[in-house]
Amino acid sequence: MPLWQLFVPEDAYSPEDKIGFAEDITKIYSEGVGLPRFYVSVIFHDVPKHSFLIGGEPRSEFVRVSIDHIARRFEELPERLGLPQDVDLAGQWRDVCAAVLKPWVADRGFNWELHTDETPIAYWYIDGLTPPPGWSEQEKTWAEENRATPYAATDEVPA
Amino acid sequence: MPLWQLFVPEDAYSPEDKIGFAEDITKIYSEGVGLPRFYVSVIFHDVPKHSFLIGGEPRSEFVRVSIDHIARRFEELPERLGLPQDVDLAGQWRDVCAAVLKPWVADRGFNWELHTDETPIAYWYIDGLTPPPGWSEQEKTWAEENRATPYAATDEVPA
Amino acid sequence: MPLWQLFVPEDAYSPEDKIGFAEDITKIYSEGVGLPRFYVSVIFHDVPKHSFLIGGEPRSEFVRVSIDHIARRFEELPERLGLPQDVDLAGQWRDVCAAVLKPWVADRGFNWELHTDETPIAYWYIDGLTPPPGWSEQEKTWAEENRATPYAATDEVPA
Repeated sequence: MPLWQLFVPEDAYSPEDKIGFAEDITKIYSEGVGLPRFYVSVIFHDVPKHSFLIGGEPRSEFVRVSIDHIARRFEELPERLGLPQDVDLAGQWRDVCAAVLKPWVADRGFNWELHTDETPIAYWYIDGLTPPPGWSEQEKTWAEENRATPYAATDEVPA
Repeated sequence: MPLWQLFVPEDAYSPEDKIGFAEDITKIYSEGVGLPRFYVSVIFHDVPKHSFLIGGEPRSEFVRVSIDHIARRFEELPERLGLPQDVDLAGQWRDVCAAVLKPWVADRGFNWELHTDETPIAYWYIDGLTPPPGWSEQEKTWAEENRATPYAATDEVPA
Repeated sequence: MPLWQLFVPEDAYSPEDKIGFAEDITKIYSEGVGLPRFYVSVIFHDVPKHSFLIGGEPRSEFVRVSIDHIARRFEELPERLGLPQDVDLAGQWRDVCAAVLKPWVADRGFNWELHTDETPIAYWYIDGLTPPPGWSEQEKTWAEENRATPYAATDEVPA
């Protein structure tokens, strides 16, 4: 969690670009909500123009992003982050995504579309382990060590 | 929305085939439920036979389709389209999909499987904008112009 | 159902490996919950190192698995399989997945992450047909014949 799949035009991004782009995505989670960096999976699909159709037309200046969220639910963020209960989460997430995509996508003249799904946290595993509860001490340890390590299941979720 | 990912046998479809196939998919949404054409993303994954396993067997005459719906929910369609409340939506969507896949898949002797997920509309964005409400005047404008343009957020959803 | 997408390092698995790996995945469903083998779709994405970023770093010893479940819901399994109602389904599914991934992933020194989504059963089709109800006689027939065949819709789901 999260899994970002980016469908990008073939040859649009160099290996260095992809590292920079993925770094910006990773920071959303590591700096924004305290997730371990290694939770963030970014997969680039270099799609040939004839396999990438938007509105029926082959496109080579379009980036389509599909995101699966697992470890964090939008609805828990106001309480966890001390935000007002009526915060416009959808608008905030839009602006976070748009800011990350700006230098890599919009500023290059590409159009983009992005959608975000939330999938069940219970059926998510890393290296044979059930990841520790969100916001727990053990999760912080995983974040500090940047890897999955066995932990006692009694680790409590802070209220 | 929607995002159609088609896992197809490598070299099964020419670039011209893909345009025709994507056009038929696009019309489901543009003609069927009034969506802007550019909402429809179609990605073809040309999968080598040894990477495409159905029931454990490598297949080169199979098409697997995975669809994410975002802008339209099945449950709203009866009221919006003036259909009986007890309409068999699952059966109708099956028949729509089967009709689109018939010339491109079934008639070529390929087997197929398709599933459709519905993902949260709130966390979906295009070119930095939150798309206008479904069935709104602004959505119609986007459909007519076939691109995303800024709009006043006070645009109302017709009842 | 299910659809397993495996994002694997380019050239990590030979065609023979993929057949063996997919066979182990298929048995989870055919032997575990009686699904027809041909319901199990396994797609390998051979991802170049520079397109496969975990925590912002290009990785060539990591396997990311994304699963869509359709035909079986976790919540129905205790009753169907005669398990205690308070069985730890999430823990059991973790262990099943970890066992399948052990020889192909962990034992090769690769790290892995896997998540499982459950998508709507109603909007899932095979070869133009709505698959028979789970655990029905017709589903058993499909499993025995390992292909989709027309059936009477009145086929009942056993209680």
